Amino acid sequence: MPERVRTYLDWNATAPLSAAARQAVLAALELQGNPSSVHGEGRAARALIDGARRDIAALSGAEAAHVTFTSGATEAANTVLTPDFRMGRTPLSIGRLYVSAIEHPAVREGGRFTKDQVAEIAVTPAGVVDLSSLEALLDAHDTSSGLPMVALMLANNETGIVQPVAEAAAIVHKRGGLLVVDAVQGAGRLPLSMAGLDADFLILSAHKMGGPKGAGALVSRGEVLMPRPLIHGGGQEKGHRSGTENAIAIAGFAAAARTAIEDMAARNAAIAQSRDRMEARMAEIAADVIIHGRDVSRLCNTTFFSLPGLKAETGQIAFDLEGIALSAGSACSSGKVGASHVLTAMGFDAGLGALRVSLGPATSEVEVERFLQAFGRIAGRRRQGVAAA
Amino acid sequence: MPERVRTYLDWNATAPLSAAARQAVLAALELQGNPSSVHGEGRAARALIDGARRDIAALSGAEAAHVTFTSGATEAANTVLTPDFRMGRTPLSIGRLYVSAIEHPAVREGGRFTKDQVAEIAVTPAGVVDLSSLEALLDAHDTSSGLPMVALMLANNETGIVQPVAEAAAIVHKRGGLLVVDAVQGAGRLPLSMAGLDADFLILSAHKMGGPKGAGALVSRGEVLMPRPLIHGGGQEKGHRSGTENAIAIAGFAAAARTAIEDMAARNAAIAQSRDRMEARMAEIAADVIIHGRDVSRLCNTTFFSLPGLKAETGQIAFDLEGIALSAGSACSSGKVGASHVLTAMGFDAGLGALRVSLGPATSEVEVERFLQAFGRIAGRRRQGVAAA
Repeated sequence: MPERVRTYLDWNATAPLSAAARQAVLAALELQGNPSSVHGEGRAARALIDGARRDIAALSGAEAAHVTFTSGATEAANTVLTPDFRMGRTPLSIGRLYVSAIEHPAVREGGRFTKDQVAEIAVTPAGVVDLSSLEALLDAHDTSSGLPMVALMLANNETGIVQPVAEAAAIVHKRGGLLVVDAVQGAGRLPLSMAGLDADFLILSAHKMGGPKGAGALVSRGEVLMPRPLIHGGGQEKGHRSGTENAIAIAGFAAAARTAIEDMAARNAAIAQSRDRMEARMAEIAADVIIHGRDVSRLCNTTFFSLPGLKAETGQIAFDLEGIALSAGSACSSGKVGASHVLTAMGFDAGLGALRVSLGPATSEVEVERFLQAFGRIAGRRRQGVAAA
Repeated sequence: MPERVRTYLDWNATAPLSAAARQAVLAALELQGNPSSVHGEGRAARALIDGARRDIAALSGAEAAHVTFTSGATEAANTVLTPDFRMGRTPLSIGRLYVSAIEHPAVREGGRFTKDQVAEIAVTPAGVVDLSSLEALLDAHDTSSGLPMVALMLANNETGIVQPVAEAAAIVHKRGGLLVVDAVQGAGRLPLSMAGLDADFLILSAHKMGGPKGAGALVSRGEVLMPRPLIHGGGQEKGHRSGTENAIAIAGFAAAARTAIEDMAARNAAIAQSRDRMEARMAEIAADVIIHGRDVSRLCNTTFFSLPGLKAETGQIAFDLEGIALSAGSACSSGKVGASHVLTAMGFDAGLGALRVSLGPATSEVEVERFLQAFGRIAGRRRQGVAAA
């Protein structure tokens, strides 16, 4: 087994730093100065942050003034998911948070809402949020406690399944609610537009799109309706998020955003083609492979599959030993591999689990072939009743 | 005026990235993988974080298991400054937060305490926290609302004045309270030890000691008594702080910590000598210069001074035009230069303000000389009644 050659097919967990982001990070290392300082060094750091803000706005189809930088998507989610909003200086209460059953833990945990303030929106067996469940929940919402807030991801991190955000937005807004969209996996893979999605807030992460870890953003539709800040102090980010801005990570984030919107359609079409060929070969190799979400709209790069007789944890280790990095569900909780709440929500046997292959713009055909070879060996061992690992 | 040559003397706002931290950052850029992933790439990222945790523990005289990484000191402060604590799984209430009048805004804003739950501890005209004021406040504390929490910085960011933390700890602990120590400016400049300070929590920042922006830590005395997490989600950092770890910034933080504890005494003695010579020259050049905190224990690198007839904002711009980066008070609030709450707390005329020169290990005698030349010109213009800028 060629143990030295590693094949990284876990881009949804974190993407390798792109060449453009690396270059931007290296340039930012040269900048000394605190962006809040008024001297020349401080102003240079400030200019970098301001430029990055315009890049993130361009990526998300929003205005630069509406981009608040955070340390990542989890912090952005915890910032916006709160009952304590402000309309200018007037407090505004959100009574309840409705999250789809397939949200990432960062959203599903409900941020600053208490557990009893969070309700779950059902998902169809196809892996798509059930809009009639959303409607029923919102119709039953008690507005005396405050407005409803709905959190729906643009595309699921495990299955890659694209969610009907604009349709959900119409339902939410008809009832006076707010819609928060976790666009972490969608950014760079689907065109983003605040207006097109009709979202009130978008959550973004740098490191899922080729930027460095340590930067994310909360993008808002406007400036007036904003959550009470999660992190107080020096008043950076117009008071919405205090703490010295992470200029290095923000510079990389901006570069990744610029790259992401260049030739987006062509790049993603090529990835989709590679992924589709791979899935066809997988079905040839193991006729019983189950590819989740194959019949609905998915991200170009994601394949979430189950092999009867192969538990996901076992499969992941087997692939790792073959030199292939892929994942069983989402990467979180310090390496714990738990049952996938996404499969459970879809009504699938979560005990068996599923494995996720996620490709990136730099993934080569050679790498896909290496995966397929390993897939063949592991599927074969399984057929012979030999433990895969 | 030599506009091209810049002299950076604002190390308390942010320190230039050290050579060791830069090298660690560059190495970390090569690591792909999410520290929470179980495959080889993930485990390599995890190993980096674990090693960094040991380095931060060594810096702070604590145990590695008690280091929680955050995006910076402001987040760490907002995490620990909360009425909602847990003793294991049992909720524990903190009734009131007592902050010294000279704390950094990140602490002074009180984190998750409401404004009416925060009280201020007075400071003597010498710039040192008034321990009798602390005692009186704690004696009047109503324990029915919960335990008292006290926040006292190890050294002030504007004046550099070292605070009597161990003495305060004795007072706080005698009354069953918790002590949070903002060690951001002290780390690397003073030996740190959880036991020696008798602190319950320490707050650290990477970028004030030569590491990159975007990393900080909350160091706790133990593992049982912890604040309710500020940021929920994937359960990283043993559930104390969710969100993918910023491996790049954490690697740089660890390198800066290792450097900081090497030859700490000798390095700081050299800086102090340089600073003391500089102050002596300043007094020769302008006999009326007021150097705040000159008679009490200060950090080796900080000079906070006022020149009668020169407003701090004007002075800062004048120095910037001379190529010298220094600051008027702390760097925060996006370039706003407000009255220094530290000077106000010391009973000094905050309207005049003061300027801060803060040196670093890489500051050369040539740079100090450039500052002194500019100081002479600016002080001279002031004497002639010409606007300094």
